[in-house]
Amino acid sequence: MNFISGKPEDSISLPKLRNTLIRLEDTIIFALIERAQFSVNDNVYKPGMYKYEQSNGFDGTFLEYFLSEVEKVHAKVRRYQSPDEYPFTGPLPEPIIPPLNYPQILKHNNINVNDKIMKFYLEDIVPSLCMPGDDQNYGSTATRDVECLQALSQRIHYGKFVAEAKFLDPKLQPKYIEYIKNRDVGAIEELLTDKLVEEALLKRLRRKALIYGQDIEENLNNLQTTKQLKINVDIVVELYEKCVIPLTKEVEIEYLLARLDE
Amino acid sequence: MNFISGKPEDSISLPKLRNTLIRLEDTIIFALIERAQFSVNDNVYKPGMYKYEQSNGFDGTFLEYFLSEVEKVHAKVRRYQSPDEYPFTGPLPEPIIPPLNYPQILKHNNINVNDKIMKFYLEDIVPSLCMPGDDQNYGSTATRDVECLQALSQRIHYGKFVAEAKFLDPKLQPKYIEYIKNRDVGAIEELLTDKLVEEALLKRLRRKALIYGQDIEENLNNLQTTKQLKINVDIVVELYEKCVIPLTKEVEIEYLLARLDE
Repeated sequence: MNFISGKPEDSISLPKLRNTLIRLEDTIIFALIERAQFSVNDNVYKPGMYKYEQSNGFDGTFLEYFLSEVEKVHAKVRRYQSPDEYPFTGPLPEPIIPPLNYPQILKHNNINVNDKIMKFYLEDIVPSLCMPGDDQNYGSTATRDVECLQALSQRIHYGKFVAEAKFLDPKLQPKYIEYIKNRDVGAIEELLTDKLVEEALLKRLRRKALIYGQDIEENLNNLQTTKQLKINVDIVVELYEKCVIPLTKEVEIEYLLARLDE
Repeated sequence: MNFISGKPEDSISLPKLRNTLIRLEDTIIFALIERAQFSVNDNVYKPGMYKYEQSNGFDGTFLEYFLSEVEKVHAKVRRYQSPDEYPFTGPLPEPIIPPLNYPQILKHNNINVNDKIMKFYLEDIVPSLCMPGDDQNYGSTATRDVECLQALSQRIHYGKFVAEAKFLDPKLQPKYIEYIKNRDVGAIEELLTDKLVEEALLKRLRRKALIYGQDIEENLNNLQTTKQLKINVDIVVELYEKCVIPLTKEVEIEYLLARLDE
């Protein structure tokens, strides 16, 4: 989303947010398809697999090392100054180019659920998405992991904008204020949740994964679509059901609980 | 492709190579679709747009700076030791993890056509692929540019493996040797070229771009596919016709011309 040259009110217009979230589904599916061509490659996730001698004795996993190096580069070009980008690692260097003047749309907050995203991704997604085993493509694996994680993180932290937009709805604001004051998480969650929208999302997601996951072959004159998919569609749907939707909601609730603070 | 744990002969089996090239079409189309969501953003390609004060006075373009920083990270995790990966920038740091023991499949060579890929990408692809104007998403733009460029570079430099495989065909080798000795580029090119395969490729590519480029919408109960595409299909086909196919052939020919050298 364009936070700078667009109008500030666009950033919290629900239809615009919805378009952004729907477009991010494609990005997430593409990233998962790209990751799925490599094996699980456990070594990428084993602490101390390599000694990173030129890196101050860092002894985490290969993915942690790689992610931290990538995020340093991205931080220098001010990725994490954008209100929809949240880093997994830190501390990060300051940007080396001038800051952009983002309008203040969100109430100040430090909500960052990337640890939970990482945990779900490593424990539930990678083992079911990828073929078991080791193909030694560790660099490609980590590169694709970073793309998946960044896309998921952006999608889930958009919950802050969604929450702000819903809070600003004059018809709902009195209720939100009441529930926030009462710390009534259940009531906030209920008010935030639209079951029909969630069902439509999962249906659309399944269809997208089916379409984008096709392996398109050709036999010179007749083009064919094989039945074999590049990705397990159920895993994409499960990722949303068990991770993206609940964590987005967690972000929304955390954001709202602090919405009235000074 | 797996160069390590696979059998060395697999790396130059034409059917295996063909599968890799077909799979890379998807990667390239996904990357182009992702780039196409951002505007042209000319500032990313203007030299001296920013002063990179902490970077030894580098005064190239934002993309050049970003690409060079990304390639440094990738070099440290030995990306460019893989025989199918070629950097755009340099000098690059040494890997900080132990080298993999790649079997020597290709004859030693220094062929790298990345400058030509970059030129075509910037002059022909970006202006036609993306909406004109500036949306200030420079970081996202450069990130997607790097993904497109890396995928194109890998695809095109696979020409080395294709050339080696074709050269090793016992029925064709005497001819290749004759043409190479005569420096007969035209005859080498003719021997390398299979018009039917190229036509099938372009047809398949158009179909892939149509399928992956769909914007999949839903109206709660009835799923729809809109006619609007996320990408201009003609540009994808043109990229292959005017850049990928000719540059791959250039790589193949250059490789073969040096194939008999000591």
